[in-house]
Amino acid sequence: MRLSRSFIPTLKETPAEAQIASHRLMLRAGLVRQTSAGIYAWLPLGFRVLKNIERIVREEQDAAGAQELLMPTIQPAELWRESGRYDDYGEEMLRITDRREREMLYGPTNEEMITDLFRQSVRSYREMPQILYHIQWKFRDEMRPRFGVMRGREFLMKDAYSFDMDYAGAVVSYRKMMLAYMRTFQRLGLKAIPMEAESGPIGGDLSHEFIILAPTGESQVYFDAAFEQIDYLPRGGGGFSHDNADDLHRFFTQMTTHYAATDEKHDLAAWEKVAPEHRREGRGIEVGHIFHFGTKYSKSMNCTVAAPDGAKVHPEMGSYGIGVSRLVGAVIEASHDDSGIIWPDSVAPFKAVIINLRRGDAVCDAMCEALYARLGNTALYDDRDERAGGKFADADLMGHPWQIIVGPRGAAAGKVELKRRATGERTEVTPEEALGRL
Amino acid sequence: MRLSRSFIPTLKETPAEAQIASHRLMLRAGLVRQTSAGIYAWLPLGFRVLKNIERIVREEQDAAGAQELLMPTIQPAELWRESGRYDDYGEEMLRITDRREREMLYGPTNEEMITDLFRQSVRSYREMPQILYHIQWKFRDEMRPRFGVMRGREFLMKDAYSFDMDYAGAVVSYRKMMLAYMRTFQRLGLKAIPMEAESGPIGGDLSHEFIILAPTGESQVYFDAAFEQIDYLPRGGGGFSHDNADDLHRFFTQMTTHYAATDEKHDLAAWEKVAPEHRREGRGIEVGHIFHFGTKYSKSMNCTVAAPDGAKVHPEMGSYGIGVSRLVGAVIEASHDDSGIIWPDSVAPFKAVIINLRRGDAVCDAMCEALYARLGNTALYDDRDERAGGKFADADLMGHPWQIIVGPRGAAAGKVELKRRATGERTEVTPEEALGRL
Repeated sequence: MRLSRSFIPTLKETPAEAQIASHRLMLRAGLVRQTSAGIYAWLPLGFRVLKNIERIVREEQDAAGAQELLMPTIQPAELWRESGRYDDYGEEMLRITDRREREMLYGPTNEEMITDLFRQSVRSYREMPQILYHIQWKFRDEMRPRFGVMRGREFLMKDAYSFDMDYAGAVVSYRKMMLAYMRTFQRLGLKAIPMEAESGPIGGDLSHEFIILAPTGESQVYFDAAFEQIDYLPRGGGGFSHDNADDLHRFFTQMTTHYAATDEKHDLAAWEKVAPEHRREGRGIEVGHIFHFGTKYSKSMNCTVAAPDGAKVHPEMGSYGIGVSRLVGAVIEASHDDSGIIWPDSVAPFKAVIINLRRGDAVCDAMCEALYARLGNTALYDDRDERAGGKFADADLMGHPWQIIVGPRGAAAGKVELKRRATGERTEVTPEEALGRL
Repeated sequence: MRLSRSFIPTLKETPAEAQIASHRLMLRAGLVRQTSAGIYAWLPLGFRVLKNIERIVREEQDAAGAQELLMPTIQPAELWRESGRYDDYGEEMLRITDRREREMLYGPTNEEMITDLFRQSVRSYREMPQILYHIQWKFRDEMRPRFGVMRGREFLMKDAYSFDMDYAGAVVSYRKMMLAYMRTFQRLGLKAIPMEAESGPIGGDLSHEFIILAPTGESQVYFDAAFEQIDYLPRGGGGFSHDNADDLHRFFTQMTTHYAATDEKHDLAAWEKVAPEHRREGRGIEVGHIFHFGTKYSKSMNCTVAAPDGAKVHPEMGSYGIGVSRLVGAVIEASHDDSGIIWPDSVAPFKAVIINLRRGDAVCDAMCEALYARLGNTALYDDRDERAGGKFADADLMGHPWQIIVGPRGAAAGKVELKRRATGERTEVTPEEALGRL
């Protein structure tokens, strides 16, 4: 994309309303704009990041055998009356009356609706187990929306739901999703720690939340260094397989044996049993939550499946959420400096920015155009009529992993400067070498 | 995907509430389920089609130089008061009051919001022109939602908005979008005819709607056969370029010179001037609408851009909509038979279904598994314990472009039967030849 013609409105000033780094940087780099309290429009740069995160989340759900579908945002109140949650949910639920006076709501989550779809469709143990998910906008009418997309009212969530014939099956589904989550976060360039959690309003007896480490995180966390050393991805023979019960057991044992707690649940006695050189402390942000809640919804909503002996069984269920739009903010909290965002390669809106330091100089222009033609849509071309300082500042602010800097002196000698945003390292290379390094 | 383990609930009976072919077939083939009046959940098979259509729409918008962003579903009432449409819109607008008694609404369209984002961000003619689009769920609280996803309440729409410094520029944007639309529909396997239209409640003086031909369409259309012969796609030197003003002019002249009208606007005198062998009649479905509406919103919402002489100019705007979820129904209306759906290759949820006629037969099983391993996620593997008749019927109903039929006799001789859904043509080939044909 040519920056001169793109809809990327960067701001020089820091917006007064933004209290945390990710909110400030998302506004300044032109990723989002607020359209109502806690509701954001995703501008082209932010949209690309959101889509990259969504893609990685999707790939890992698919790899775990979950099937994608898409439920609507507007739900009928009756379903929530069946489960008993319509009144429980309180004012965070955005309640709506349509033109025919039917009570509707903007879904904050989808346990009821998925249970309804499931009970209409699945009759036999032969079709079990199932994990179904969707990536859809949700609404929670927070009293005090704040911190930008980290606690917005309209937010994008991936929510998955598992259906199993018995508890043992449900545990396997739970572990598969946990592994999918750890892989997802690793691919996003984040360090994630699973923590045992209360299951809260969804109910249930097994629950973990996923905290990613970020210096500016909202809570203090304590964990065993072992978490930093595990490779969850299936490459070079490492990692764990979703399809192997032993692997899943070994994985789950590791996740639950090593110490990890937020300060609310921090247990000094247990902490002291962790070898001192293994003790890690830091700040963290919650980005996902998984629950096993048994037959809470399948019973209240009369959802049954025929077992091999013909008996009608209430499926054991779980739900698994990742805050996709929240992750955009979380990635920035985990990876930024005073100059701006530092995107991990996997989620960066553009792999590289091409900075033309002397627009109108025939050699610079030709070299930039040639690089841009080769990189296409994976690069942003800063072809604006601006001074070099402004271009450098915007490139650092937007956080592209690579900067290819084309100035008249270098260009005349057939060279560009290649800068890695994360380290600040600059090297003089030929355009061909720069493309090779990307 | 293995059909035995997938969430594809086909129905044997025709649902009584479905009045048109696409609605019946979408329910029977397990593409969607209604969750409230006019609101649907997209099950895995339907979701894949929706995503394929969305992808083609997106690629053609991007190719035309439009930039993708994503606006939220919930909008503040104030914006609509600025343009004066808040009261005009009537009961079709889903109006919402949040917990702080703020008036909100579920967006039926986005002219106001995009104008607001634009006026905050773009200051100078140097950043012009711009075409911005998003693909987002909309809500129109129809009095009588019907015909399945063809006239639903919550529906997915691609809406683009153009901003130009003057009328001449706006005409270029309008033509670019028109070309993008004709390419989009051609890639979807549809025959589309652009028709001059009233611009309706959006206002403006230049407007076309796009009708696709379908034997079961909602309106009668009359058009010149010339439309059937034009290739809009840029391949083999044909088609038209977005970036060439002469091409765009030649394209637009063709689109507006040849006769085309729905029965409401049918002009017998003009029709008689069409050469008899060029006269075509058929049924059609509206799937897109484009408008130039000048400065209606930029003036009422005080959106200006500085011209080269410093004067503040109200941008000339246009809007361009495609009903993405409606297109799923429209494609089926255009392409089905008594047995079920016939997906065009470009939108099919799976390229092929592998039908195992004798599960448990070692040779059949091995051959099916080998084919499935090669085709991966692009194929559906019917591995169910069902009789052959049921599998054939479901394959025809779901409409996969190819069926690879593996029976014990053929398999023993190293052969499969390859059936093309559209023609019914069957040929006996080796598995390797079948893969080659796909």
